[in-house]
Amino acid sequence: MSTLIKANYLIETSYDLEQAASIMAGEQSCGTFLRTPGETDELRENHAARVISIEPRGQVESPSLPGARLKEGRGIQRALVTLAWPLSNVGMNLPSLVSTVAGNLFELAPFSGLKLLDIDLPEEFAVKYPGPKFGIAGTRTLNGVFHRPIIGTIIKPSVGLSPSQTADQSRLLIEAGLDFIKDDELQGDAPHCPFEKRVNEVMRVINKHADRTGKKVMYAFNLSGDLDDMLRRHDYLVSQGATCLMVNLNSVGISAIHHLSKHAEIPIHGHRNGWGMLSRSPSLGMEFPAYQKIWRLVGVDHMHTNGIRNKFCEDDQSVIRSIRSCLDPFLGLKSPMPVLSSGQWAGQTVDTYRAVKSVDLMYLCGGGIVGHPSGIEAGVKSVIQAWEAAMLDRTLEEYAGAHPELKAALDFFN
Amino acid sequence: MSTLIKANYLIETSYDLEQAASIMAGEQSCGTFLRTPGETDELRENHAARVISIEPRGQVESPSLPGARLKEGRGIQRALVTLAWPLSNVGMNLPSLVSTVAGNLFELAPFSGLKLLDIDLPEEFAVKYPGPKFGIAGTRTLNGVFHRPIIGTIIKPSVGLSPSQTADQSRLLIEAGLDFIKDDELQGDAPHCPFEKRVNEVMRVINKHADRTGKKVMYAFNLSGDLDDMLRRHDYLVSQGATCLMVNLNSVGISAIHHLSKHAEIPIHGHRNGWGMLSRSPSLGMEFPAYQKIWRLVGVDHMHTNGIRNKFCEDDQSVIRSIRSCLDPFLGLKSPMPVLSSGQWAGQTVDTYRAVKSVDLMYLCGGGIVGHPSGIEAGVKSVIQAWEAAMLDRTLEEYAGAHPELKAALDFFN
Repeated sequence: MSTLIKANYLIETSYDLEQAASIMAGEQSCGTFLRTPGETDELRENHAARVISIEPRGQVESPSLPGARLKEGRGIQRALVTLAWPLSNVGMNLPSLVSTVAGNLFELAPFSGLKLLDIDLPEEFAVKYPGPKFGIAGTRTLNGVFHRPIIGTIIKPSVGLSPSQTADQSRLLIEAGLDFIKDDELQGDAPHCPFEKRVNEVMRVINKHADRTGKKVMYAFNLSGDLDDMLRRHDYLVSQGATCLMVNLNSVGISAIHHLSKHAEIPIHGHRNGWGMLSRSPSLGMEFPAYQKIWRLVGVDHMHTNGIRNKFCEDDQSVIRSIRSCLDPFLGLKSPMPVLSSGQWAGQTVDTYRAVKSVDLMYLCGGGIVGHPSGIEAGVKSVIQAWEAAMLDRTLEEYAGAHPELKAALDFFN
Repeated sequence: MSTLIKANYLIETSYDLEQAASIMAGEQSCGTFLRTPGETDELRENHAARVISIEPRGQVESPSLPGARLKEGRGIQRALVTLAWPLSNVGMNLPSLVSTVAGNLFELAPFSGLKLLDIDLPEEFAVKYPGPKFGIAGTRTLNGVFHRPIIGTIIKPSVGLSPSQTADQSRLLIEAGLDFIKDDELQGDAPHCPFEKRVNEVMRVINKHADRTGKKVMYAFNLSGDLDDMLRRHDYLVSQGATCLMVNLNSVGISAIHHLSKHAEIPIHGHRNGWGMLSRSPSLGMEFPAYQKIWRLVGVDHMHTNGIRNKFCEDDQSVIRSIRSCLDPFLGLKSPMPVLSSGQWAGQTVDTYRAVKSVDLMYLCGGGIVGHPSGIEAGVKSVIQAWEAAMLDRTLEEYAGAHPELKAALDFFN
């Protein structure tokens, strides 16, 4: 069993690649700009980060980011670099891990680009950070949906509805057959829609429907806020029979959500708003596989990934890689359920299934369900039919022959 | 008194600027891609974000970020945009505020660049978030240093020293006259240097020196970690007479540090490692004035800003703006003390003072003090003398005439 922390980066530099990688390793372990008297050979032997591999990835014309120190007369190269640290540099400490693999190094002057791609950890890290309590299987059990994606939607408008308006909209969505509903990430605990009142009114609708039909719709209530408020809101959710909480990952942060996850009795739906800041530059920040592993260690049960042909600026290749990275094994921890959303409707199911080979997904549609020409119920049916087609390896057009809701969706949205 | 939340952005888009700004405002308040039935005129009137101003800032040749939807045949424009939200959209909730001003909008397809520059808030926000408990005045009182910057250094090597080696190095630094010492951000609670043992050994040195001389050196111990661990470590620090804690802002996160700050009896030294991910692209992320305000609301007493002519890739103009933004008033909250570091020595004091017109700074030097040719004590003296020169409006060369330590520093480091 390895006791090394590893991290892969894409770098861009006009320095010699070996030297550049050594500077990264030095800055993020025992080094400094000058070798200090205390930095003995023994200390370096025990604690220096090591450069495991360097793979050149070609030249670029001009520096991607400003502020880099350029070596005159040398080209600017890109390369993949893997570094490794002894676990004992960090100990069992998730914030220290993140500061080690994603700390000061983005500001190092020799680099005109530096992006963290992925991380790998010793299995013992999972003893302190056991990851999601529910994951895919736990979510399916609570939601009662098996063998196909969980079909969901988001309460819209994002901000402005009262608790009773939210409950009214939930009732329509539940009666139309949706499995899952979530708050918008901007809906928190504002005066016009206080958290506890919203939970009250919505859960009355959900519980009543469950009593009548046996189907308990999962609603992800956004409890993001100060720590004590979040813990209190969690307890209130549990007391009202709610089966999911939602939290804004980036604006709440690692240590508070980790604390919440230890306390949580229901799945944590992780919303990644703000992720664009970290990810959208090809030369800076972090890619989703690294991000997902950090939040899996924190204990997040559902991770937003976007869907293919989405309305945001993320391309399909990146979306597919994100979904797969959630489903891939990591330290024996449960997989977070990938949450596909943004511009989704029946039309993307076949291509999504072909690419990810799994239905262990939450598939959230806004207009793609509520905008169906025959109504919301037909919208839900069209999406379920489209997933059936995908799983049966049929084309949507073919399957639509005997499935009028799917046919209507294809006619309307295509 | 305004009840509006305001935020300024630099945007880059090939859309009509009015339309682009409206898309931002819609996405971050009640809008969605399609207008939904619940989005009534009354709801829009009460909750829609408004575009306050748009100032064109010229054209660019090609999109700064990939993935943007480009309008064919139109140029790509840059502009400054100010949006405003009713406070009631968010309520008194810092994570919700951050998700509102810095959430999904970075991924919106119409934009090939989007950077949050600054924010402004209604004063009532400070009732729930009263900010730093200590700030500049409280830090000075605890440290006993007035009328000049607090002179400090960082324990190096970053990782690998044992508690007793850390204490030995601290002893040398304290006897040399330093006011302030901090852990490296990579030093946390690793097996070779457990937090409590380190505190024990270092505080014995600090307390003994204080008993003998009356000067209590401030040491910022990095307690970053899981929430319960951080609270326990804080209490241990207080029990041992420590006067400062350090935390890694980005890898611990807003809600946990806010919780810690409510509990804290000593100043919080905020380390911004990872900040490069958010800031280094000129077309993406966040600028320091916005970032600083968020962490001031959280309650952070010291904020890292870099110093001028630093070894990282940040230019002097940006450094100076960061320092000033810490010192500027904001909602009546105490100012966090700006922490200048990276490649600092006597040489930057005059230019720094001319630019920021304040000595309410922590001035951290590594090699610039411990590498002084006449030793660490001379290194400290050289930096204090250089600040005297700055405050007296003298040049360093002139002042060095009667100050041999400064003269030696100029001869050696220039």
